[in-house]
Amino acid sequence: MAIFPEYQQLVDQKRAKQASLIPPEWRLPKAITDKVSPSSNASAFDLMLEHQILTKEELDITENYTAAALVKSMAAGNLTSLEVTTAFCKRSAVAQQLTNCLTEIFFEKAFERARQLDEYLAKEGVPKGPLHGLPISIKDTYMVEGEYATISYVSKLKLPTATSNSAIVDILLEAGAVLYVKTTVPQTLFVCESFNSIFGTTLNPHRLSLSAGGSTSGEGVLVAFRGSVLGVGSDIGGSARVPALANGTYGFKPSSNRLPYGGQQEILRKGWPGIMPAAGPLASSAEDLTLFTRTVIEARPWLHDATAYHIPWRSVPKKDRLVVGFFPGDELFPVFPPIARALSTAVDKLKAAGHTVKRLTCPPLIAILTTAARSFALDQSGRFGGWLAEAGEEPIKAVSDLIAQMHSGADDISLESVWQFTAEREDILEESAKIWRENELDVLLTPGARGTAVPHGNFGMPIYSIPWNLLDVVGWRFEDEEVLNATEVISEVLNN
Amino acid sequence: MAIFPEYQQLVDQKRAKQASLIPPEWRLPKAITDKVSPSSNASAFDLMLEHQILTKEELDITENYTAAALVKSMAAGNLTSLEVTTAFCKRSAVAQQLTNCLTEIFFEKAFERARQLDEYLAKEGVPKGPLHGLPISIKDTYMVEGEYATISYVSKLKLPTATSNSAIVDILLEAGAVLYVKTTVPQTLFVCESFNSIFGTTLNPHRLSLSAGGSTSGEGVLVAFRGSVLGVGSDIGGSARVPALANGTYGFKPSSNRLPYGGQQEILRKGWPGIMPAAGPLASSAEDLTLFTRTVIEARPWLHDATAYHIPWRSVPKKDRLVVGFFPGDELFPVFPPIARALSTAVDKLKAAGHTVKRLTCPPLIAILTTAARSFALDQSGRFGGWLAEAGEEPIKAVSDLIAQMHSGADDISLESVWQFTAEREDILEESAKIWRENELDVLLTPGARGTAVPHGNFGMPIYSIPWNLLDVVGWRFEDEEVLNATEVISEVLNN
Repeated sequence: MAIFPEYQQLVDQKRAKQASLIPPEWRLPKAITDKVSPSSNASAFDLMLEHQILTKEELDITENYTAAALVKSMAAGNLTSLEVTTAFCKRSAVAQQLTNCLTEIFFEKAFERARQLDEYLAKEGVPKGPLHGLPISIKDTYMVEGEYATISYVSKLKLPTATSNSAIVDILLEAGAVLYVKTTVPQTLFVCESFNSIFGTTLNPHRLSLSAGGSTSGEGVLVAFRGSVLGVGSDIGGSARVPALANGTYGFKPSSNRLPYGGQQEILRKGWPGIMPAAGPLASSAEDLTLFTRTVIEARPWLHDATAYHIPWRSVPKKDRLVVGFFPGDELFPVFPPIARALSTAVDKLKAAGHTVKRLTCPPLIAILTTAARSFALDQSGRFGGWLAEAGEEPIKAVSDLIAQMHSGADDISLESVWQFTAEREDILEESAKIWRENELDVLLTPGARGTAVPHGNFGMPIYSIPWNLLDVVGWRFEDEEVLNATEVISEVLNN
Repeated sequence: MAIFPEYQQLVDQKRAKQASLIPPEWRLPKAITDKVSPSSNASAFDLMLEHQILTKEELDITENYTAAALVKSMAAGNLTSLEVTTAFCKRSAVAQQLTNCLTEIFFEKAFERARQLDEYLAKEGVPKGPLHGLPISIKDTYMVEGEYATISYVSKLKLPTATSNSAIVDILLEAGAVLYVKTTVPQTLFVCESFNSIFGTTLNPHRLSLSAGGSTSGEGVLVAFRGSVLGVGSDIGGSARVPALANGTYGFKPSSNRLPYGGQQEILRKGWPGIMPAAGPLASSAEDLTLFTRTVIEARPWLHDATAYHIPWRSVPKKDRLVVGFFPGDELFPVFPPIARALSTAVDKLKAAGHTVKRLTCPPLIAILTTAARSFALDQSGRFGGWLAEAGEEPIKAVSDLIAQMHSGADDISLESVWQFTAEREDILEESAKIWRENELDVLLTPGARGTAVPHGNFGMPIYSIPWNLLDVVGWRFEDEEVLNATEVISEVLNN
């Protein structure tokens, strides 16, 4: 990596500052951290066991509760927010030392906030909100007042800290959450990798030599490692789902425009006419995906941010018997054995539990991917490259490939390209809706990626997640309630 | 108008055929029809009184019921669908002879359908659906199996009749409606006038020399004249609201993508990336706007058409006390005295009834209109002009002006224009949401046009309706339930 001297200094300062924010008593011995590198086959879970930093109670808090259960325990006075916050801060500090998954660390603010919430509960006798006292981690792209949002660009180290919160941050705080860390994203955010020039490589906790996926890289790692029980990501092509899959946790891309996306660090160029991104949670359980989504929507996010549509949360009863569409993969991009095995196990278990599984022939992925690629090519401003060049950052291979792809055939990209993209998407939506209608589907079971986690730098195009951005989720669009219900039902079947 | 000989013949045939579809016993004497012309100051309501065709019962049915009341009476067996259908067919035949508001006439099919519905009720003991037996008129753009959809273009007279129904037509039929006529639209559909080269000029029933407005021209006239109790229109810049206002009835543009818009005759070029159109009802009462919208949404239109979002109908209680934002107009385009008077009367009555009215300073209309104009300029395909030229149709002045405006600065219209349009709209939406939040508004009271009906050919740009297409309705987007509730509450206050 060739980085201009000035920026190397900024990066060094940033990383030194970041390291200093981990309290000395939470630091791992050098004997352990020496084993951490992007080429190591070690497991962060194993390394953690070599030096006990968390108390027995803290291990219990971080490993044996869902977010919903933690909130319940805190509201009942069985746990304090300070205890819970301390446990997750500690564990996230361990995660950071073993996987490099954090960008901003603000434990002291979190403790102060947790104390205030504990006092609030003691005084008022009722919790502050549906997320009372719960530590929540958040992707670096979201603005948290007083914190940086460098979103992978060395050049953005020169920007001041945020002077206000993203809409979703305001809502989470209003609901009683405690923020304590922000998490890493890959260079440019538009690749499913986990390297950036400021913070280096985020490592997969199961095997450090594997990528954490992206772009919600750090969040995927932190939640899988139980350094967070609930995290906020985002997704325009797989950015919440791929890291969930790569690290082994739950991720959800809601229908776009249901959760507020506004007030983030600039990612997409303003006026973006293509496939819309969505904010979405990562969690250790399906029920926590619902808790998060319901809480944010019940806060009427449209009052905070015009990117959120006025579609109130609906309380929908769970179906005892689902009709699950099963898309085993596309023959041009056959899934690898672990994915095929996981899917076929799921199908067997779902059938055994009395659900109907209908194997589908979906429209060829290549057509959907071609249309999606048209969307990404609509930004010909060359901003990514510009921001990288500003600091002399060298693009990683995935980013070079992306930039080349975005600008291939650039001469032919014009106003007509928008019409073509929109028209093709209409057809795909209508064709897909027809399949749904005819099969009376509740939800789709589909590969989230061609394989499981891959070595750093080798993910390639997120073939199996992009289509559901174009189609806007694996259920009926805006029926996120039904999709989350189905996810809970399926998750219960698979975990039994 | 210079029309190629072949097409003049097609037009003549079409109009002769149309005239023949009015049963002889429903024809008005020549002494009356001689008084009908676009330059006459006569009133169709007065002319109708000169020759009684409708029976006393038919006058009662067409004048003294809401759609909801008619459905109730038919379901209770107090009226048959055949009686109701006959009354509206007759009155629509009178309307046609006095105002020229129809395109397709299919009374015989309507009688047959009404008889079937009466039999259904007699046999099953329950109505077919929430619109059981109700005659509904429909804008020419919607496809009705076996009928033409020329949408104003002489060249489209050569197309065959529809082989399937538009999604919304299927839903209305499933709900028990009886279709009997299709209604006129202006040349190209993109002007608020009421002339087209096939059917000539649609006349305002209050004064024939005035325009019916557009583009849902015929529907506005027919509903105002009580030749229909409920009609289906559409709106991308005022097309449902302007004719409602010009003819004196109720019109509603729901949030786009709530009612199904699919399967219509081609109007917008496929892949349209601009402001989205919406299907919407015209009716003689606010409660019938709700009846229509609720019925269509409760039919889960997304199962029929991917243009309808999966946003279920919500039963929302009516508010006793509304907070009404009042936008009296923009000083660059001051409203004319009748509009100002209507608005100030409304404000007084609302206040007297205990509602809160907050006078607002809205963002300048000119900025919103400029952004909206960018949207319309995105179609540089010249299709309107092409379709007109195909039959040698000469554009009316409003259409020439429109085409000139769409193509002005065409060299600068590019992919960047889409970005610019989308970015500006984002800002306007956010700015508008801010006003709504700060004032805690339920709904907006705003001019629907600068004035009331104008002489034929003089409407100009729909300055006061386009902004609410850009913003997507006068309430919170997708809170159509709340907007309809507020409309009912306000309507009751004004009518008392």
